[in-house]
Amino acid sequence: MMLGELADIGRDPVRGGYSRHGFTAAELTLREWFVEAAERAGLQPETDRNGNIWAWWDDRRGPDALVTGSHLDSVPGGGAFDGPLGVTSALAAVRELRAAGFAPARPLAVAVFVEEEGGRFGLPCLGSRLLTGALPAADALRRTDPDGIPLAAAMRAAGLDPERAGAEPELLAGIGAFVELHVEQGTLLAPSGAAVGVATGIVAHGRWRFRVSGQGNHAGTTAMDARRDPMPAAAGAVLAAREIAVEHGSRATVGRLRPTPGGTNVIASAVDFWLDARDDTEHRVRATVDAIAAAAHRLAAAEGCTLDIVEESSSGRVDFPAPLRDELAALLGDAPQVPTGAGHDAGVLAAHVPSGMIFVRNPTGISHAPAEHAEPDDCAAGVRALTAVLRQLAR
Amino acid sequence: MMLGELADIGRDPVRGGYSRHGFTAAELTLREWFVEAAERAGLQPETDRNGNIWAWWDDRRGPDALVTGSHLDSVPGGGAFDGPLGVTSALAAVRELRAAGFAPARPLAVAVFVEEEGGRFGLPCLGSRLLTGALPAADALRRTDPDGIPLAAAMRAAGLDPERAGAEPELLAGIGAFVELHVEQGTLLAPSGAAVGVATGIVAHGRWRFRVSGQGNHAGTTAMDARRDPMPAAAGAVLAAREIAVEHGSRATVGRLRPTPGGTNVIASAVDFWLDARDDTEHRVRATVDAIAAAAHRLAAAEGCTLDIVEESSSGRVDFPAPLRDELAALLGDAPQVPTGAGHDAGVLAAHVPSGMIFVRNPTGISHAPAEHAEPDDCAAGVRALTAVLRQLAR
Repeated sequence: MMLGELADIGRDPVRGGYSRHGFTAAELTLREWFVEAAERAGLQPETDRNGNIWAWWDDRRGPDALVTGSHLDSVPGGGAFDGPLGVTSALAAVRELRAAGFAPARPLAVAVFVEEEGGRFGLPCLGSRLLTGALPAADALRRTDPDGIPLAAAMRAAGLDPERAGAEPELLAGIGAFVELHVEQGTLLAPSGAAVGVATGIVAHGRWRFRVSGQGNHAGTTAMDARRDPMPAAAGAVLAAREIAVEHGSRATVGRLRPTPGGTNVIASAVDFWLDARDDTEHRVRATVDAIAAAAHRLAAAEGCTLDIVEESSSGRVDFPAPLRDELAALLGDAPQVPTGAGHDAGVLAAHVPSGMIFVRNPTGISHAPAEHAEPDDCAAGVRALTAVLRQLAR
Repeated sequence: MMLGELADIGRDPVRGGYSRHGFTAAELTLREWFVEAAERAGLQPETDRNGNIWAWWDDRRGPDALVTGSHLDSVPGGGAFDGPLGVTSALAAVRELRAAGFAPARPLAVAVFVEEEGGRFGLPCLGSRLLTGALPAADALRRTDPDGIPLAAAMRAAGLDPERAGAEPELLAGIGAFVELHVEQGTLLAPSGAAVGVATGIVAHGRWRFRVSGQGNHAGTTAMDARRDPMPAAAGAVLAAREIAVEHGSRATVGRLRPTPGGTNVIASAVDFWLDARDDTEHRVRATVDAIAAAAHRLAAAEGCTLDIVEESSSGRVDFPAPLRDELAALLGDAPQVPTGAGHDAGVLAAHVPSGMIFVRNPTGISHAPAEHAEPDDCAAGVRALTAVLRQLAR
């Protein structure tokens, strides 16, 4: 399986799994690997102004191009499949088609989108959002990573010109359809016994950064009742987020939390934490986040602290177009159609281009973790499915 | 004020203040500065096997040496005074004495101890604990910093031989008395109107690392009731720590907390947090920590998580010897005697050598934070006090 070629790139010795964030050394290595692998498959790889890579079947670009692909970056300490499986499966499908002497009737490309997880600059689907103009370049370029490096500098270091970043309407207009293969994140396929399935849509989701600010001080000399400690306020907000999400039927997660300065013998001066919230509609997500924000404000005030909240991203609900997903499902032997709580570049492209997704079964449902897995047989079924889809859609 | 020479070393652009941890570039620069400044003051600086620096008045070493000094390292994002004030005041006092033609009747040295804050390797008073044998070298050398670098490697990179680290009984036996000047951490001096005071003792204190382990997973696709999320358990433990400390009359702080992997769209697989606990006696500290541990175990189990607790350090209560502190107080014009909740190298040395501490008033009491401050007039009073003490004790 081609995924094996990536096994040693970007391993995270501290967290386990892989940490492959946009424009880091690991991700740049993966990009080099992709360009080479695409060339070996006879494709013509080109990097767009935002760093997304498009490997074309031949000299044809748009109009009405059929594009497949995914991303190579990961969450911190992520699994091997989320992203790369869609890219390697696309290359494998292209190789199958070439070996069979297939000649696509329309332009065809394998795409790799930048920083889909938002693991470095905080914004998921960075590459597809820039491409489509969903995110203005100026907003993106001033975002910084945890070390304070702005996206603009990271792009420059990777050989891109940040001045040229932003929407690419011509490139986008040339795409006639987009199909992304992805490891399933959940276990909805399991009951049907199917190795592959088709996505119905993506729930609404967003990210909010909460900063509770108090007064840093000495942990040993400051009386308990003389503190303005942001940590208990943040801890209370973490618990409130869970309680409110359960009550509202939403999903809410705090998986990232950072006290400043973060010393053992130091009362924190501030605690930042990030709320990931999801629900069927954007309205429901906002109702949940508003309730959590109100609770966090009360908790911060009770500790003599202040609270600031910044929305880092927000994505409405995506329903993939029924004609395309019914066609995909039929091609895949009446594959089951399932929704997902996970965001994807296909969800961003769906606002502009008929888009769809193929999921490869995940036996445990675990994702965004080193234990993420898909059986080799299921991955092979994914390649066969994608090959059939490309063959049919590019007939 | 000599402290100004250090103003640009180890500034922390992210946290504010200073981050000067043991054997980092900033701390190595401070060590170089000290060696040069000591030589300028006519002293003979020598680095011991653990990296502590001893700048001797002349060719005499022990027995019955009078030693003053403190540390140059900081907590993450710490203030300018905690540590360096004791070192610069010691050098200034030596210069005063030399200028006045004073000839000490006993060996005299200014000492700088390594990693007093434990900001890098987690163990406070690392240098003095190694010197005295309170910490076996083997235990210390395998401790790692947050990047996974062991103390042994950090020492080697700093030009020290970790094989030679450990207790130095001869050096220790040569010390007849130790006096450490330090910025006050609290506001106990304020009511008396005194610019300087004398420490009565140090409360018992320790550090415990809690690790709550669950199952990392995708924040969007994992149902709220299917999670084994360590974050709510850790948040509950943070709140329990505060509540139990208040109930027991102890101090308990969680200022450092780190989810793994720490992604916004990732349910954490583990959360580490560090508990700093202090009280009048070691018995009371343990009772408080035991109660917090019991609560944390319950909270972790309720989330389907496990909990491991490691004691990183524990220090019993220190009472500085009454004869020395009464002598110090008398020399300082009947200076007030006050206890402290903060640990110090003087507390470690006190088990072996008559030790005492001089505090310089802190107008706000804030410490371990960028806002830590002492007025220049009070710092000058500190130098005068230490000069008088050295003159008297080395007569």
